[in-house]
Amino acid sequence: MEKTIEWIKTNNFGYSKMIDQTLLPYIYKKISINSSKDMYSAIKTMIVRGAPAIGIAGAHGVVLGAIESLNCDNFVDNIKQIAQYINSSRPTAVNLNWAITEQLKVLEKNKNEDRRKIIELLIDNAIRLENEDIEINKKIGEFGSSIIPKGAAILTHCNAGALATVGWGTALGVVRSAYEKDKTIKVFADETRPRGQGARLTTYELTKDGIDTTLITDAMGAYFMRKKMIDVVVVGADRIALNGDTANKIGTYMVAIAAKYHNIPFYVAAPKSTIDSSIKTGNEIVIELRDEKEVSVINDKPICANGVNIINPSFDMTPSALITGIITEYGIFKPDEIHKLFTK
Amino acid sequence: MEKTIEWIKTNNFGYSKMIDQTLLPYIYKKISINSSKDMYSAIKTMIVRGAPAIGIAGAHGVVLGAIESLNCDNFVDNIKQIAQYINSSRPTAVNLNWAITEQLKVLEKNKNEDRRKIIELLIDNAIRLENEDIEINKKIGEFGSSIIPKGAAILTHCNAGALATVGWGTALGVVRSAYEKDKTIKVFADETRPRGQGARLTTYELTKDGIDTTLITDAMGAYFMRKKMIDVVVVGADRIALNGDTANKIGTYMVAIAAKYHNIPFYVAAPKSTIDSSIKTGNEIVIELRDEKEVSVINDKPICANGVNIINPSFDMTPSALITGIITEYGIFKPDEIHKLFTK
Repeated sequence: MEKTIEWIKTNNFGYSKMIDQTLLPYIYKKISINSSKDMYSAIKTMIVRGAPAIGIAGAHGVVLGAIESLNCDNFVDNIKQIAQYINSSRPTAVNLNWAITEQLKVLEKNKNEDRRKIIELLIDNAIRLENEDIEINKKIGEFGSSIIPKGAAILTHCNAGALATVGWGTALGVVRSAYEKDKTIKVFADETRPRGQGARLTTYELTKDGIDTTLITDAMGAYFMRKKMIDVVVVGADRIALNGDTANKIGTYMVAIAAKYHNIPFYVAAPKSTIDSSIKTGNEIVIELRDEKEVSVINDKPICANGVNIINPSFDMTPSALITGIITEYGIFKPDEIHKLFTK
Repeated sequence: MEKTIEWIKTNNFGYSKMIDQTLLPYIYKKISINSSKDMYSAIKTMIVRGAPAIGIAGAHGVVLGAIESLNCDNFVDNIKQIAQYINSSRPTAVNLNWAITEQLKVLEKNKNEDRRKIIELLIDNAIRLENEDIEINKKIGEFGSSIIPKGAAILTHCNAGALATVGWGTALGVVRSAYEKDKTIKVFADETRPRGQGARLTTYELTKDGIDTTLITDAMGAYFMRKKMIDVVVVGADRIALNGDTANKIGTYMVAIAAKYHNIPFYVAAPKSTIDSSIKTGNEIVIELRDEKEVSVINDKPICANGVNIINPSFDMTPSALITGIITEYGIFKPDEIHKLFTK
């Protein structure tokens, strides 16, 4: 499977290679990231996006930081500092913090090794995380496909697809696994303003795979629910609290409310690494506010009057009461049972 | 008050003059419409839009049809045919049919008069409808302002403003009347994809009037409701059934569901002419499906992958159970009491 983001080994450690997702679906281009500063910027500007994918980007960022620290006095401390810097690029998705922490564990455990050896170990660990991500998504897909009725129409918001992960996808992994068993399923993809990940990335991924996909604007979902044209909602997640409250792309909450109103099941698909076991409820999740221009400018032209205020929260929080189940690589959990993943 | 659309009298009957709303907020330009065919096209392409405004456009269209029929064998029948043609330009807003019917009543009553006299009577009637529209909106605003709490933040969807009417507006008429009494009110304006009437027109109108306005994308409303940053929702309407079910711009239904979930009052502001006394429930309302390109292209560039399906319903139906009240020129009614306007 082609990877959205991967570490390329060379004689001199190597570099991170990723699809530039800001150019899709019109231009498919892979770029190389060779410094921690460029990685920070790639995450911040959403060249790489999607909670699991930015986790891997974070892991690569630590490797790049280690390479940059090779000749520093304080090798280990310098890496930790760069790790913290990368971790500050986007606040909401916990996978970034999770993957960086996985790298720092390797660093801590091997801190007395030769520096070059440490870098090799960090690279190996990053590649392990990449491969695990795909395996995890395949399991999520397999579990998730059981809740997709035959011939179902699935509504999804944003892009929790192959492009949001290393490959296969979480919510779209469920779609892909269901499609392997039943070619008659259909997808409704929310455009997902302001950044248009649904319009740009989900339609790109799914039509390429031959899956019947209909693009709708974000405010249309309830219309199609009322017409009984949507059977189930499946979305990804950026951070899940221990009580099952889920932060995901702005607009997810509105879809969840509409699904509840129409008695349509609403599922979240995400790896265990998306669950933040340090927080009890979603109220503790920090919601990133992004640049106003994401709202006010489309295709390089303004879409509104001058002088208007803009607030651009990038995520919202869907309370667990609106969530039918959370699909993980360990099975499907009711939101109020997700904490069991940490107490077993 | 400057009129969004008005009949300009000349020695030779005159013509319809209107703001080209497809160019706003960047270019303010008035255009003249001199034929029934051009009026059909102006309504269809949304040069003029908004239920009350397209009512007036329909009334003007009948006048233009009468002028064109001056030398026809069947003067009256020809006008009726053109009226039907104009009426077919957009199916959902009932005001178009209502205003055309008002003109046909004048035609019927005076059909034995001199042809030029009939045209003058149709012009007078059109101008009467224009002036009445503003008066009605002022009354709607006055009644509606009573339900706006001091310092309230009002969420609105699409543009039910001066630009959707001859002047003052319905939902934004309520905002304007409230603002006259309390300068501390604020408005949250939904972008309103796909055509962006909220982003383009509502932000334009309200910032011009100095009203504190925040543009948000359509899927953000619930986020701000949860944060208790929205006190009340006020929207316009394109057609209201006798049971209070209301068709309005696509996305309104989703806002209404979110408002209900958060116990936020949801009001519809519309003149009596928006109520279709011939239908009992909203299920009888025809929803217009518009061009796919409205969804797939923004600012002349595509926003999605090729090969994706698109369905573009222009309106949705909000059931009366989600509506707190309907604000008319006769007062504020509970949705299940709106039928009383026809039985008094």
